[in-house]
Amino acid sequence: MTLLADAATQSSSELAAAYRRVRRFTERLAETLSPEDTTVQSIPDASPTKWHLAHTTWFFETFLLRDQEGYRPFDAAFETLFNSYYNTVGQPFPRPQRGVLSRPSLALTLAYRQSVDEHIELLLASGEPNEEQRRVLELGLHHEQQHQELIVTDIKHALAQNPTDPVYRDGEFRLGDTPAAAWIDRPGGVVEVGHDREGFSFDCEGPRHEVLLRPHQLASRPVTCSEYQAFIADGGYNTPQLWLSAGWATVQEEGWRAPLYWRDEGDGHWTHFTTAGRQPIDPTAPVCHVSYFEAEAFARWAGARLPLEAEWEAACDKLPVDGDFADRLLDAGEALHPQPLANSPQGLAQSYGTVWEWTASPYTAYPGYAPPEGALGEYNGKFMCNQFVLRGGSVATPSGHVRPTYRNFFPPAARWQFSGLRLARDAG
Amino acid sequence: MTLLADAATQSSSELAAAYRRVRRFTERLAETLSPEDTTVQSIPDASPTKWHLAHTTWFFETFLLRDQEGYRPFDAAFETLFNSYYNTVGQPFPRPQRGVLSRPSLALTLAYRQSVDEHIELLLASGEPNEEQRRVLELGLHHEQQHQELIVTDIKHALAQNPTDPVYRDGEFRLGDTPAAAWIDRPGGVVEVGHDREGFSFDCEGPRHEVLLRPHQLASRPVTCSEYQAFIADGGYNTPQLWLSAGWATVQEEGWRAPLYWRDEGDGHWTHFTTAGRQPIDPTAPVCHVSYFEAEAFARWAGARLPLEAEWEAACDKLPVDGDFADRLLDAGEALHPQPLANSPQGLAQSYGTVWEWTASPYTAYPGYAPPEGALGEYNGKFMCNQFVLRGGSVATPSGHVRPTYRNFFPPAARWQFSGLRLARDAG
Amino acid sequence: MTLLADAATQSSSELAAAYRRVRRFTERLAETLSPEDTTVQSIPDASPTKWHLAHTTWFFETFLLRDQEGYRPFDAAFETLFNSYYNTVGQPFPRPQRGVLSRPSLALTLAYRQSVDEHIELLLASGEPNEEQRRVLELGLHHEQQHQELIVTDIKHALAQNPTDPVYRDGEFRLGDTPAAAWIDRPGGVVEVGHDREGFSFDCEGPRHEVLLRPHQLASRPVTCSEYQAFIADGGYNTPQLWLSAGWATVQEEGWRAPLYWRDEGDGHWTHFTTAGRQPIDPTAPVCHVSYFEAEAFARWAGARLPLEAEWEAACDKLPVDGDFADRLLDAGEALHPQPLANSPQGLAQSYGTVWEWTASPYTAYPGYAPPEGALGEYNGKFMCNQFVLRGGSVATPSGHVRPTYRNFFPPAARWQFSGLRLARDAG
Amino acid sequence: MTLLADAATQSSSELAAAYRRVRRFTERLAETLSPEDTTVQSIPDASPTKWHLAHTTWFFETFLLRDQEGYRPFDAAFETLFNSYYNTVGQPFPRPQRGVLSRPSLALTLAYRQSVDEHIELLLASGEPNEEQRRVLELGLHHEQQHQELIVTDIKHALAQNPTDPVYRDGEFRLGDTPAAAWIDRPGGVVEVGHDREGFSFDCEGPRHEVLLRPHQLASRPVTCSEYQAFIADGGYNTPQLWLSAGWATVQEEGWRAPLYWRDEGDGHWTHFTTAGRQPIDPTAPVCHVSYFEAEAFARWAGARLPLEAEWEAACDKLPVDGDFADRLLDAGEALHPQPLANSPQGLAQSYGTVWEWTASPYTAYPGYAPPEGALGEYNGKFMCNQFVLRGGSVATPSGHVRPTYRNFFPPAARWQFSGLRLARDAG
Repeated sequence: MTLLADAATQSSSELAAAYRRVRRFTERLAETLSPEDTTVQSIPDASPTKWHLAHTTWFFETFLLRDQEGYRPFDAAFETLFNSYYNTVGQPFPRPQRGVLSRPSLALTLAYRQSVDEHIELLLASGEPNEEQRRVLELGLHHEQQHQELIVTDIKHALAQNPTDPVYRDGEFRLGDTPAAAWIDRPGGVVEVGHDREGFSFDCEGPRHEVLLRPHQLASRPVTCSEYQAFIADGGYNTPQLWLSAGWATVQEEGWRAPLYWRDEGDGHWTHFTTAGRQPIDPTAPVCHVSYFEAEAFARWAGARLPLEAEWEAACDKLPVDGDFADRLLDAGEALHPQPLANSPQGLAQSYGTVWEWTASPYTAYPGYAPPEGALGEYNGKFMCNQFVLRGGSVATPSGHVRPTYRNFFPPAARWQFSGLRLARDAG
Repeated sequence: MTLLADAATQSSSELAAAYRRVRRFTERLAETLSPEDTTVQSIPDASPTKWHLAHTTWFFETFLLRDQEGYRPFDAAFETLFNSYYNTVGQPFPRPQRGVLSRPSLALTLAYRQSVDEHIELLLASGEPNEEQRRVLELGLHHEQQHQELIVTDIKHALAQNPTDPVYRDGEFRLGDTPAAAWIDRPGGVVEVGHDREGFSFDCEGPRHEVLLRPHQLASRPVTCSEYQAFIADGGYNTPQLWLSAGWATVQEEGWRAPLYWRDEGDGHWTHFTTAGRQPIDPTAPVCHVSYFEAEAFARWAGARLPLEAEWEAACDKLPVDGDFADRLLDAGEALHPQPLANSPQGLAQSYGTVWEWTASPYTAYPGYAPPEGALGEYNGKFMCNQFVLRGGSVATPSGHVRPTYRNFFPPAARWQFSGLRLARDAG
Repeated sequence: MTLLADAATQSSSELAAAYRRVRRFTERLAETLSPEDTTVQSIPDASPTKWHLAHTTWFFETFLLRDQEGYRPFDAAFETLFNSYYNTVGQPFPRPQRGVLSRPSLALTLAYRQSVDEHIELLLASGEPNEEQRRVLELGLHHEQQHQELIVTDIKHALAQNPTDPVYRDGEFRLGDTPAAAWIDRPGGVVEVGHDREGFSFDCEGPRHEVLLRPHQLASRPVTCSEYQAFIADGGYNTPQLWLSAGWATVQEEGWRAPLYWRDEGDGHWTHFTTAGRQPIDPTAPVCHVSYFEAEAFARWAGARLPLEAEWEAACDKLPVDGDFADRLLDAGEALHPQPLANSPQGLAQSYGTVWEWTASPYTAYPGYAPPEGALGEYNGKFMCNQFVLRGGSVATPSGHVRPTYRNFFPPAARWQFSGLRLARDAG
Repeated sequence: MTLLADAATQSSSELAAAYRRVRRFTERLAETLSPEDTTVQSIPDASPTKWHLAHTTWFFETFLLRDQEGYRPFDAAFETLFNSYYNTVGQPFPRPQRGVLSRPSLALTLAYRQSVDEHIELLLASGEPNEEQRRVLELGLHHEQQHQELIVTDIKHALAQNPTDPVYRDGEFRLGDTPAAAWIDRPGGVVEVGHDREGFSFDCEGPRHEVLLRPHQLASRPVTCSEYQAFIADGGYNTPQLWLSAGWATVQEEGWRAPLYWRDEGDGHWTHFTTAGRQPIDPTAPVCHVSYFEAEAFARWAGARLPLEAEWEAACDKLPVDGDFADRLLDAGEALHPQPLANSPQGLAQSYGTVWEWTASPYTAYPGYAPPEGALGEYNGKFMCNQFVLRGGSVATPSGHVRPTYRNFFPPAARWQFSGLRLARDAG
């Protein structure tokens, strides 16, 4: 069972169960963290765990409870403190400063969650929610799942700054081995992509529309660490011709020599910082924590290219959305990755729940797209600039969150997500 | 006659004539400038006129003369000084420092031009150039035309920093009036776009390929200053909901309140800095010097959107490439814009040689695109990231330079080009 | 009894008692703070409480225990993590990143303190310490007292960033009222200043040496909030002529309009953020949290100047070192400031334990000064550049810490210390 | 004859002659520069030659002519353009942008000089100037001499950015050889320093006042290049213990490895960029273009210290103000440095007109100092913060400009002036 099923047709008690499931999993992700851990912020793009715990709660309070008759906000100051970027709702507290907020404490933040949860459950217990409430509730749960992944990526980044290599969770969020690689032929022609609005999707996933593809090939699995090591060994980070101009500038400015978290221990031996502390690189696992710039340069070096998002979607549309999702990994514990993932009938492996796969597609509006009215209209559309689409979900994504049409997006220099790549090339 | 006809099929003497024509026009653009004017640089993105004069010459020397037997470089230091970004050819002199180069002087720079010109003409006089030489010569001329436009935009920006409002050229580069506006219906379906490689084009303009369009409408002409003033008056620059997130951040950081060069003189009266000094805004002229962010926000405010580049190309493909190109404006002098441009049979006016029109399309590779081998492969492909495509050419573009398939590109915050916009919207 | 008496002549058990007293007071300052509070860092110049707790411990461990036979460091990683700036001892962890260190936890940090304390007490119990150990122990306690003050100023700054105006401690660290103001005549002539090395002093306080003073006057007490409000009301922050060039630039860049933590509530009503949350300004209390730039501009506006540090020292040399020191304020609790401080026989009030008083003297070496050999030589001398001397101690200074010769120093733009000013002027 | 004698007692025609002499020498310094050379600016601290030519003229126009009945400003825009930092007179054009001002041209700037010169000479020809006019005229000439030195240092810095190593003037501004070194004993006691206001001085040079010195020694001559090379060879730039904390940070950030303009050519061979292009280091010449940080670190490495400014002044007070001043070097031409400078009777050589000597003294107000009223009061006092005093003048200083009491000042990281050092140490 996934954490989150389609909510549109669920009964009030099913919704309440889904709500509880998602909310509890967020807290489970924080349960191994100390109050101090949940407070720190290492870069403006990442947020403290405590902030994620509060912001996801703020979402339900702001968009579901605040206008309810008789509802008294838990704390009036939270309206500003835990607003992320909704200009419509007020002036958000500055993002790069979130790590200075020692108050509210972790304990009070959890009490805030509990209070809002009780009100939400009361609301659901009092009868069937109306359509708008149902819509917001569902959006709020998917929104919370996005922050579940960010909790993992952000605390990983924060702990990585600590020279003591702290452990977030033992052995979890580990990437499984890859199967053998092959090129899969993919036909051209007009295909339909995008969400058809049956069941939940984010606004930017639709409208469903036709695109024209050309015949091409997709790699059967993501690029591995050992393949990426060959790129490094071949001077990939010293060869400007392989890089986009902006990518090469970033390589120079940031001194990139390997994926984020990798460390050269000498004699060809590499380690990387993981959620289980510092570990040796696993050569057969998918490479992870690379930027779009690195993915694109690797593909050029390999004589290939990145797939278009429509190519990815057309290929993975019918595959089961199955993978090493975060909740499954936590449930599995020692029994992690009990069996290697078989290739799909289409020949594609590890499309879901492995690493987010950078595509060659800038994040733009689909034809006919318009953001919803109101504050929730700020959700996706306003980020359609200087970002690239990633597909498939990662080991830090909770199950039930991604879909074939799911569009994740990050700027081309971002590396702190569980982002890897799969190769593509034009047919013959 | 345009400055530059198709060179592929020209005789050696025709090529020499084209070469002279293009080279002379560059010098004509500099002829009203003092040695001091040609030296200054106001922002890292813009270059001194002197640098443009030298760099375009460096291009011919490096890629046509340097490997010729017996050729002795004019000055060995120029190889580095006037390299723009060709990592393959060596380490370029840092771009933001170009304004510190007082040497070579303007006079020596012009002597450099003359010396290289003599060698090129000697080469052409000595027989028919081979195919590679012809290709490089042609590319060099189109490259020089790009820098002709940059000479105008860059000196305009530099002079604009001077509180004395200096005049670059009297009355020239003025935008003509617009005709009445209308919505033009455009069909959907599969269309072919991109260059077919008959005649010259930049690598990024091809391959020609099919795209799938949806029925839509295009405005018959660009947005005017008075329309943009209405956006300002309606609080456009104070309404975050109208803006992309990155655009809104730029508005805040840069304090944008109007297009670049505009100044509010009070009582609803605006002036702008032009190549002819400070002038009143002409309400019926196309708005110019707006960024992608502003163009996109204006379109949203107007209940419309920006066109896709394929929509633009499909609509303008068959139009005559006719407009107020820079050389025509200079030739016309007082007789500027003798008659308003009539609408085309398709109903579209001012598609070429007016303002560069921002499109909604990020600058990406066409399907099947691969950059050429060698140093000249650094020409376009490496900039395919975080830029948006503009179409059509401006009053600062020399005639013969743009084509229906021509793709100009700039980052979304750039405003110092002659950039405006045309509206589009989905069909009914 | 002050927290710290002269240690040079104390017995081993007296030293142990002094050690315990100082160490316990540090922990008392942290006792009202949550684990989250002790983790945050608001600016690179300020450090997390947790870091102060650990760094002061690191000092004893590094300079007293590490070389002891058989001593096993509490945690090898702490050597780097909690080094502040001793290049001789290794590469310190980057200062601006201290707020990212969630580990070690507050609990483990306190355990670290306890472990080092036990070893130090064991050392002292095992016999009389040798001279070098005595010297380092004494330095370590005075060093810890400096960090006690920084704990207060740094957590105040961090909490001030929180829009919820959190309370650090109720009613404490409040500045008492000032007595009436008068000009005190002070003679010129050769006087001796600086420490004579009887009893403890920091290296920079000596050697004792002669300086030549001119007749002058000192204000009997520090400048008050209401006097400073008159400066604001008179346009002090809008008048470049009153400011040093670098000060005026800072005013413009930072948008300073009042002392740090002040907020204009309208209608001439001001509040300021204090360790007890947001409070109304007390007009008769000394103004606090002003930079050297502001102090110097205020003095110019008032037709006066700041005192030289030698003028201050010559005037306060014989005064009892008596004031509202931090430990006394904490002990007093509700009975704070039971009686206004009487003027001294010399007519000077509130010279000690009120606000640090900016002097006109850049922080430079006294004649004959040389830093000690070894790592502890990095203590003071290397900061003798672009800093100004402050004298007297503040309500955040523990008793027993300051002396008439005590030289505190900060850059001229620093405002987060409890820094105020006293006026001076030339005689007749 | 020096360029500038004491003007206070001169007749009107003597003043006119002095005026002409100073003004002509400024133009002589620019005569080898092209219009392009005079336009460029390499760092915010340095200004274009053209700006110096205009600003010195602006000074006379603003403070002597503007209020004269019937005077019509040469160009109203120049009031802003060529104001340096006089807030009282209006809003200066931003300093870092001076290199963008292509207009006015060099020719127009020289015409501006001529026009103002004619008015000034007319003023002087019309009778004896009043005391205020005399005071301003004199200040204006000394002000212009300061800019004469800046013309040399600023164009040197700008040309140094050009990889072609351009020549400003052949063989001039070369530092002569040093005589043998010795320690000169200097007594302690109360001495008088500062200017007594007989004859011209800048406001900050007075009042004359007593200071108390301690017995010490001064080196007979400045530190040489070969001595400085020994510091480099001994790892001076890699040893944090030798440096002030802020100095060490600068060394790291800027990657300093040698004085400004030095280049390691390998095998222990060094060259430096000079006003005559790139030249080998002369081991026996004084080291030049070092910052205060480097001077101070060198002194510490050498077991010495920098002199106090009062020590320097007391020692050089009675020496003839004789040296390789800029105008003498230009006049000498090929016959440069015909005879080595003999040691003075006091044993001190090269105190004047060699290199500016960093002192250990921060630039502060002398006792009793108050800036003059009015705009000219902004001249010196507002810079008394985070700067150190230099003494003696350099090969780029015009004769007649420096005095024993002359206080030059720059921030501790500045290196583009002709700044070196002389060692001092405490007496036995």
